Amino acid sequence: MKVAVHQGPFVELPDAVAASGADLVIAAEMITTGYHIGARSHELAEPADGPTAARMSALAKETGVALVYGYPESDGSRVYNSVQLIGPDGRRAANYRKTHLFGDLDRSWFAAGTEAVVQADLGGLRIGLLICYDVEFPELVRAHALAGTELLVVPTALMSPYELVADTLVPARAYESQLFVAYANRCDTEQELTYCGRSCVVAPTGEVLARAGAGPGLISADVGRAALLASRTENTHLADRRPELYSALTEQGLSV
Amino acid sequence: MKVAVHQGPFVELPDAVAASGADLVIAAEMITTGYHIGARSHELAEPADGPTAARMSALAKETGVALVYGYPESDGSRVYNSVQLIGPDGRRAANYRKTHLFGDLDRSWFAAGTEAVVQADLGGLRIGLLICYDVEFPELVRAHALAGTELLVVPTALMSPYELVADTLVPARAYESQLFVAYANRCDTEQELTYCGRSCVVAPTGEVLARAGAGPGLISADVGRAALLASRTENTHLADRRPELYSALTEQGLSV
Repeated sequence: MKVAVHQGPFVELPDAVAASGADLVIAAEMITTGYHIGARSHELAEPADGPTAARMSALAKETGVALVYGYPESDGSRVYNSVQLIGPDGRRAANYRKTHLFGDLDRSWFAAGTEAVVQADLGGLRIGLLICYDVEFPELVRAHALAGTELLVVPTALMSPYELVADTLVPARAYESQLFVAYANRCDTEQELTYCGRSCVVAPTGEVLARAGAGPGLISADVGRAALLASRTENTHLADRRPELYSALTEQGLSV
Repeated sequence: MKVAVHQGPFVELPDAVAASGADLVIAAEMITTGYHIGARSHELAEPADGPTAARMSALAKETGVALVYGYPESDGSRVYNSVQLIGPDGRRAANYRKTHLFGDLDRSWFAAGTEAVVQADLGGLRIGLLICYDVEFPELVRAHALAGTELLVVPTALMSPYELVADTLVPARAYESQLFVAYANRCDTEQELTYCGRSCVVAPTGEVLARAGAGPGLISADVGRAALLASRTENTHLADRRPELYSALTEQGLSV
């Protein structure tokens, strides 16, 4: 399966999808409205099957390309920082609400999701969804791997000077939990924030298969189960875990 | 506190310690005997208070420098791949047995340790001990952070082509779990194995404070609680965890 990241504005997503030649195109966190927009994230919030979802569904169906995009989701009472996966047939396949909120930027406006692992099958692979700060928590990526995720899709809005996350943490996640990771960032500015680009697709070997720069662009890479199984045969981290030694990780109230 | 890594042979450790100007000098996994030595790891195994420990104790006391070194430990019936911390007064302060054994190299000869978190206080910091493959498991580093480890000391015997672990995973661990990591490798060969050097000291910001090359050398860096607290104030990963979402991590029998 060919997976692509559109690192650019929402208005250019349809052209990028048409030009991608990919099976799946991923766009950034809150790409439909912008991220650092304060109260407007509530004004612009839509249900998971709202008008923006209908447009994305039409785009997917028309092109035969699956899509993942971030948007502010309203469930009628609360607003979540969410991403949605639309299948190549236009069907809404999975919807994930960010569980690890990032500082005041998230906490001022969004309720936290309560479901850690959201998945869907696509192109013969089990796809999992996370958002931005979520991927900095190795526990959450591990939970995905243990639940069978093979390609983890992570729309983000990563600012300078946090390039370390794109360059170091994301490849570490792919290797230590033995799955593909596609990390889709922005490269523009909002008020005082500069998003640092550097979207990437990383193999379970830790190899960076595709990497964007600091500016707009479309990157893509082939991902598949054969490469995943080959890596897992060589790198046996998932089998070598010792869960009986990790009990502190699920205890409440441990704070340091 | 100044922490140094001796990336070189055991016979040169005393000179390195004397020249280091450091408070703590760290040497590699199984530095006292070699690592890829088959049955000799049993012939050369010693108790934690054996003759090699006595020599290390004398070296520490004579120089006033604390030491961490790897060795094959016998408890009378079993042999472990262990590291020991000797205080600047020559006292044995902590002894850790590798819990995550690496492939046939480890499993053919060593019993696995059963205690995940082993710590000691030194120079005003809480020190934790891990060995090589252990650090590839984010759960174990997280368990250290939650138990109060501030400087994680990791003797290793990392071979080519696994430079990714030294260059990418170790800095990711420091950042995601907000602690200092000192990673002490070898740079020589044993039979078919070439150890890749690249020892490092990494700050909780993810910044690599010191990095060795592929050959012998002594690297050092200052580590301390003020820098740790400053980083933890800025990077609130430990406080932002959601343990209620991580229950899969401690379940037995989840295999993929």
